[in-house]
Amino acid sequence: MIDASKIWTDLQAIRAAAPLVHNVTNWVAMDLTANALLALGASPVMAHAPDEVEEMTALAGAVVLNMGTLDEPWIASMMTTLYAARKHGRPVVFDPVGAGATHLRTETARRLLEAGGISVLRGNASEIAALAGTAGRTKGVDSLDESLQVADAAASLTRRCRVVVVSGEKDVVVAPDRRCVLANGCALMTRVTGMGCTATALTGAFLAVQPDPFLAAAHAMAVMGIAGELARDISAGPATLRMHFLDALYNLDEATIASRLQVQP
Amino acid sequence: MIDASKIWTDLQAIRAAAPLVHNVTNWVAMDLTANALLALGASPVMAHAPDEVEEMTALAGAVVLNMGTLDEPWIASMMTTLYAARKHGRPVVFDPVGAGATHLRTETARRLLEAGGISVLRGNASEIAALAGTAGRTKGVDSLDESLQVADAAASLTRRCRVVVVSGEKDVVVAPDRRCVLANGCALMTRVTGMGCTATALTGAFLAVQPDPFLAAAHAMAVMGIAGELARDISAGPATLRMHFLDALYNLDEATIASRLQVQP
Amino acid sequence: MIDASKIWTDLQAIRAAAPLVHNVTNWVAMDLTANALLALGASPVMAHAPDEVEEMTALAGAVVLNMGTLDEPWIASMMTTLYAARKHGRPVVFDPVGAGATHLRTETARRLLEAGGISVLRGNASEIAALAGTAGRTKGVDSLDESLQVADAAASLTRRCRVVVVSGEKDVVVAPDRRCVLANGCALMTRVTGMGCTATALTGAFLAVQPDPFLAAAHAMAVMGIAGELARDISAGPATLRMHFLDALYNLDEATIASRLQVQP
Repeated sequence: MIDASKIWTDLQAIRAAAPLVHNVTNWVAMDLTANALLALGASPVMAHAPDEVEEMTALAGAVVLNMGTLDEPWIASMMTTLYAARKHGRPVVFDPVGAGATHLRTETARRLLEAGGISVLRGNASEIAALAGTAGRTKGVDSLDESLQVADAAASLTRRCRVVVVSGEKDVVVAPDRRCVLANGCALMTRVTGMGCTATALTGAFLAVQPDPFLAAAHAMAVMGIAGELARDISAGPATLRMHFLDALYNLDEATIASRLQVQP
Repeated sequence: MIDASKIWTDLQAIRAAAPLVHNVTNWVAMDLTANALLALGASPVMAHAPDEVEEMTALAGAVVLNMGTLDEPWIASMMTTLYAARKHGRPVVFDPVGAGATHLRTETARRLLEAGGISVLRGNASEIAALAGTAGRTKGVDSLDESLQVADAAASLTRRCRVVVVSGEKDVVVAPDRRCVLANGCALMTRVTGMGCTATALTGAFLAVQPDPFLAAAHAMAVMGIAGELARDISAGPATLRMHFLDALYNLDEATIASRLQVQP
Repeated sequence: MIDASKIWTDLQAIRAAAPLVHNVTNWVAMDLTANALLALGASPVMAHAPDEVEEMTALAGAVVLNMGTLDEPWIASMMTTLYAARKHGRPVVFDPVGAGATHLRTETARRLLEAGGISVLRGNASEIAALAGTAGRTKGVDSLDESLQVADAAASLTRRCRVVVVSGEKDVVVAPDRRCVLANGCALMTRVTGMGCTATALTGAFLAVQPDPFLAAAHAMAVMGIAGELARDISAGPATLRMHFLDALYNLDEATIASRLQVQP
């Protein structure tokens, strides 16, 4: 179902078309996510003013919503952008950063999901569990299989969005009728801020060229994990990893994807 | 007209005086532009509160306005800062990020230009064409000479500001009575977010020590391009380029400027 | 009083517990400070919405307040967070960025100090002198001993907070009954934006595991300076230094701390 040649086709399409990806995202990750999108071959734009988000969304190939540094004006920008994306038929990926940590975050994420129009929801196990209402039940799970443990909870959320990605040591991509597990990546990536946000942003780039959101999400997670592994092999710590990760996105070729890809049935 | 010894004189002046450069700029590029100003030898400050921008502007040697992540409070901060700069006689460089992409951006850029007091306007070909009202006519231009194609349009804008810089593969600096073309830089710089904003910020540092805005802008573009080339020669991708670019700004010496500078008549 | 084994014990505690450090901080330094906290072993969160800061503060092991890119909503967030920290008994470190430069900054810093509940105040010599009301008297001091010159002024501020750190070529840590001087670090660190903010953020991480704020502050400054020295030894400029600094935080071990630590009586 997921294979290297299809990932490569999408990556070539991104590099050829340089699709505009419109981000309403958080301040911590703006720099890294913009650089990751550029390194991949896409054209990032970060804009949030109520007066321009509809125009910008209409120009974009895909939209990234991320509630990292949340506040009321930002919630309004995300809602307006989401409505514009529906109106103009643009795919949307949403990152519910910190859902479950505070009421504001959990409720904002639910409001955005209930508004409709989100193609892909990407979060870590605790965020997805919180949104599925199963947070209590996931306590104490083996962290190695944390993503897998919440896959059923994730499936329940596909009534509100088409695809859910649970990121972690393993990344689980869940659609109503399909699932896949990707096992690329490395632990050192968790010591770089905004890496989850970057996975979400890259999903936006793939959504701009790949009409099937399940494939777009899986391809993004594969590229993310493979670039992280390539970086780890030549890195002395999290900051060198961050740098080499971006370079790896820029240099990634088909043979490397084929030799590194780890898909589990 | 543009020669290495004059660039070096200005660079030494920046390193000796460490002029305060006050930036009202966007969230994506704040980190890179502050680091570029520090690496060059200037002292960056990022401040935007209506209650303090006049005081901060009075302390500064130059002001950088950049509308990257635009919204209403930010427009108000830029207007207030611009008036303060005029009142205190501080040179201003303005970056109309995304002009032409949305009405909010095009109109905001025009409002700032019409307010008066901007010494240097720096943008890419599509932004400058949009502000000159010639955007439609520049479609389909040879991208290699894109900056040159909009030079006449840029000239029409020098009624509203003293100097216009059109950045691209070649950088064109246009004053009512003078023009020059700088051919340093490399394509990989376009895969690093905020590099245009950084060219604008460095122009601010040069404006703080060089009273002629035409020379300040040309010297900034030359240093920017040369540092980018030096970085490219030892980089594997956009993230290593970004790092080596900042180090190159810090280490730049007169001999390197002289051997690399490419000015076209 | 300050010794390598105690620093190492705290650092191990941070790595083991990964304490949540809640930052209400500025946009320029968010990326670097979040990465520094992650590299050290802590878990950073950046949140500022009035609706969630109390909940987030209650979850955190320590709070970092930093007024770098100050405005009215941000002042309100810092005040609300400070009250929440007092209510929940969380230690707070405060960075009065730019105090003395504008009235807004000096007055905001004083309001926060007077509100009570700040464990550690960390600034450079001019910021601390401005808050102590001795700014005029510190003009012309030998910059090599600038931090030492304002130590008495810093002592006067310990009526409003428990510990004051004056950062500079030497870092002076002042409590009502104790002082120490740390001499690690290097000049190139001043050419990286947000390094002062990072010292403050790391103090937050140490406050989360070390109940004595004097030791927490001194240990943070020692780790900061040692990581900076390790980075300088392999760096060609400020951007390579920034990267290696973060890696050094991640890799720091007891033997390196013991061999590098420079405490002056």
